[in-house]
Amino acid sequence: MAKSKFEYVKTFEIEDRCLPGCWIVVRIDGKSFHRFSDVHHFVKPNDERALGLMSRAAQKVLEDFKDVVLAYGQSDEFSFVFKKDTSVYNRRNSKIVTNVVSLFTSAFVLYWPRFFSTQDLQYPPSFDGRVVLYPNDEILRDYLSWRQADCHINNLYNTVFWKLVQDKGLTPAQSQQRLKGTLSSDKNEILYSEFDINYNTLPELYRKGTVLIRNKETDGSNEARSKSSFSNSHKSNLFSPRISVLHVDIIGESFWREHPEILNSKKL
Amino acid sequence: MAKSKFEYVKTFEIEDRCLPGCWIVVRIDGKSFHRFSDVHHFVKPNDERALGLMSRAAQKVLEDFKDVVLAYGQSDEFSFVFKKDTSVYNRRNSKIVTNVVSLFTSAFVLYWPRFFSTQDLQYPPSFDGRVVLYPNDEILRDYLSWRQADCHINNLYNTVFWKLVQDKGLTPAQSQQRLKGTLSSDKNEILYSEFDINYNTLPELYRKGTVLIRNKETDGSNEARSKSSFSNSHKSNLFSPRISVLHVDIIGESFWREHPEILNSKKL
Amino acid sequence: MAKSKFEYVKTFEIEDRCLPGCWIVVRIDGKSFHRFSDVHHFVKPNDERALGLMSRAAQKVLEDFKDVVLAYGQSDEFSFVFKKDTSVYNRRNSKIVTNVVSLFTSAFVLYWPRFFSTQDLQYPPSFDGRVVLYPNDEILRDYLSWRQADCHINNLYNTVFWKLVQDKGLTPAQSQQRLKGTLSSDKNEILYSEFDINYNTLPELYRKGTVLIRNKETDGSNEARSKSSFSNSHKSNLFSPRISVLHVDIIGESFWREHPEILNSKKL
Amino acid sequence: MAKSKFEYVKTFEIEDRCLPGCWIVVRIDGKSFHRFSDVHHFVKPNDERALGLMSRAAQKVLEDFKDVVLAYGQSDEFSFVFKKDTSVYNRRNSKIVTNVVSLFTSAFVLYWPRFFSTQDLQYPPSFDGRVVLYPNDEILRDYLSWRQADCHINNLYNTVFWKLVQDKGLTPAQSQQRLKGTLSSDKNEILYSEFDINYNTLPELYRKGTVLIRNKETDGSNEARSKSSFSNSHKSNLFSPRISVLHVDIIGESFWREHPEILNSKKL
Repeated sequence: MAKSKFEYVKTFEIEDRCLPGCWIVVRIDGKSFHRFSDVHHFVKPNDERALGLMSRAAQKVLEDFKDVVLAYGQSDEFSFVFKKDTSVYNRRNSKIVTNVVSLFTSAFVLYWPRFFSTQDLQYPPSFDGRVVLYPNDEILRDYLSWRQADCHINNLYNTVFWKLVQDKGLTPAQSQQRLKGTLSSDKNEILYSEFDINYNTLPELYRKGTVLIRNKETDGSNEARSKSSFSNSHKSNLFSPRISVLHVDIIGESFWREHPEILNSKKL
Repeated sequence: MAKSKFEYVKTFEIEDRCLPGCWIVVRIDGKSFHRFSDVHHFVKPNDERALGLMSRAAQKVLEDFKDVVLAYGQSDEFSFVFKKDTSVYNRRNSKIVTNVVSLFTSAFVLYWPRFFSTQDLQYPPSFDGRVVLYPNDEILRDYLSWRQADCHINNLYNTVFWKLVQDKGLTPAQSQQRLKGTLSSDKNEILYSEFDINYNTLPELYRKGTVLIRNKETDGSNEARSKSSFSNSHKSNLFSPRISVLHVDIIGESFWREHPEILNSKKL
Repeated sequence: MAKSKFEYVKTFEIEDRCLPGCWIVVRIDGKSFHRFSDVHHFVKPNDERALGLMSRAAQKVLEDFKDVVLAYGQSDEFSFVFKKDTSVYNRRNSKIVTNVVSLFTSAFVLYWPRFFSTQDLQYPPSFDGRVVLYPNDEILRDYLSWRQADCHINNLYNTVFWKLVQDKGLTPAQSQQRLKGTLSSDKNEILYSEFDINYNTLPELYRKGTVLIRNKETDGSNEARSKSSFSNSHKSNLFSPRISVLHVDIIGESFWREHPEILNSKKL
Repeated sequence: MAKSKFEYVKTFEIEDRCLPGCWIVVRIDGKSFHRFSDVHHFVKPNDERALGLMSRAAQKVLEDFKDVVLAYGQSDEFSFVFKKDTSVYNRRNSKIVTNVVSLFTSAFVLYWPRFFSTQDLQYPPSFDGRVVLYPNDEILRDYLSWRQADCHINNLYNTVFWKLVQDKGLTPAQSQQRLKGTLSSDKNEILYSEFDINYNTLPELYRKGTVLIRNKETDGSNEARSKSSFSNSHKSNLFSPRISVLHVDIIGESFWREHPEILNSKKL
């Protein structure tokens, strides 16, 4: 069996190393999750079980990949930020993104029953992933702001949309028509005047998404805390003691001022 | 919420389209499966449950990705061959490899209990993946030959190694020492003279690995067949009716002569 | 002087190796040659001096890069075909394309006075370049056909356009307007009926462009031949004895049948 | 002539856009300039004509590429720094590097007679080029420091090497042997004790290389100045009035403090 005769095919594997000195962000997105959420009867507009499971799977990624300094998730997506000078897998693009997306998926499926106790998985869900490089802190923050702004915009829309459907009996098409061309202020007004809802009092989990960061190592007393509004409803062992689960604004300065170690991860 | 202000970060996403006209091969590999197989008490050197599960997860990939014309697996790896002119995801490298590895992982975890009825998953297993492009049929075949030759070499080694450990009571270190520098013929001889085993009569599943191809569409009478030596021990619905599971030589000419549609997939 | 302190910056150089097994084509194009041809009073629509100089510069590339098996040029562009299995510069994309474009440019400027004896260069002309990979012979031929078809289409247009301007006194704008929407057959008809020109009798240099191939090594008696219609008007030492300069059709089969060694370059 | 039939080959051109937000450095190097300098009788260890020509060709690049904020050259190499947010050629790697290397080469050949009045070019010289991305100012400066440190190290070596050959009559092999394993301090000592040369008083052109920057626009009174020690020996019209030619240290802070506009080029 002339093994060596075939070995030349390895030369077709082309290096895909990420540029050094850049933040490596892996973003994963659920594939066809519109259908997936229908089939599995997700509560609309936000299903706490699904959001909790997403968060739990993301925590697994942080547990295994020590160079992830922050993760941000909303809806069916999660972004993982590797520190600028990580040398994980020699910074090989494919190696990084496939390991992350595979581990996330694996945890999502394995932990499913802990979050969906009465709803079996009907088929294997999957996620795609991509690596994006951001060369400095400012642009990395703009990336995260982009995702959190997206969370807000979608959640505001979905909140009104589903209120119109669930409480007013509009069809999805009618609801969509009603919202066409409305501004954020219009949507806030509809919520307030028609449903007596002050959008800003809705759970931050929905409005801000989920931020995962590592607890500072000296900060032992705070371990295992979770500010998640729904964390108490699950067994505490679902969560990683060394990771904080936050639902806070990361667009403004205060978060970053409070957690300077995230962007200064090189020095840790 | 000035969304547009942050949208510029999308320009950091760089196109990674695969060269047209080339076979796209996605190969996935289990991450740290040596440890994984220990923790989950895999039978050595070959665990039929694990091989069956790998095959089932791979079939799920073929079910969802119609442009995969062949998959080849052995041990904890699987290679998926997309036809040369596929336009799946506009041939974007990351999109293809992450979707495949995620779906495979998802199926692996979801279908685990069907194959390991008495052994729970202890933690989420994961796989890495890569895309490799092969510009013509000859090189693609050499790639597949490389993997199948690798299967043979490893299986022969592992078969003798574990016989020495399991039947002769050697420690792993002693067994390794015994096999150091031996040729294939030496290993065959050890099997024959010391264990009365003719290597060539061992199951083809072990010696050849697993080949998945689509049944010819006109070939309705053969649907749902599986030549897998272990398929009968599982429920028939574990397998895809339109996919053949083979354990045959793909290095020589005869397989390709028998299945000309694989390399001529463009015309299908 | 701590040299090593800075050496880490080399890690920012990312490998850009070309996929093995593919034809490597380097195509170079004149930068702003519309302006360049005006400033240097090129004869329109075809300036034999310029075409001769382009051809001579391209021959220099073939002299220095032995793995170029064919070059095709027209107007201000030239394509160089490296054999499939070339290992020049370890197939590094940037290395290959920059060396070719630099040598071509250098020869173009250095040999300028031999072709433009009464016209000094007014400023340094330049060319851009790119590498494109073609995975098989059929697609490579289609690439070359694409360039030669482009040569024909542009030359037919330019021939009529300049006839209308030079002989009929139309302004460029009027000439352009006259040709708007015309088919090839219309343009042939204008040439024939208004200028008594049978397009197919115009020099093949204009209609077919320039093909450079290496003389077969056994073919010593034919060395230094040039089928170029204008080669006799220049000193013979302008041309490389081992390279044939042809103005022939490369879209049809006959050229390739006559020169099977080009596509079979691997075996040479 | 079915043009469209062949147009599909354009899909084989793969995008090679440079990551936004990074400094784009194009470095070009002379190909086989050891031989080239011998054939053209360069003065060793430094030929002012050659260095002047390199500088002049580099100035041409700055004249045509307005987004180059600094160029640094030494020996047969030159590095061009494009500002971080340049959108030249949509940041396409090949387009940028080939245009720069081609224009540089073209100017080098065209301006050759102005610098080498008594020495004709014997054959077309060429340069290779590469793009390297640097994600922040600190790393960019380290890159430039790397090149200038290299200039110093090589020049010190070459200065002693050629003194030993030219003044002491050593063969090149003997000179090389003499210098084997010597430190910088040793070489300085040889120069001082054996040749009465204080290395630090040698021309900065040799010791520091050449820095090209744009004159500040308000700085009209200083236009056309050149601090080059050899500029007076050539016609003033060889030089670009808006570009300063400096031979200064760029490793330390003072250069950058004096020219903050270079790194802040975005704001210009």
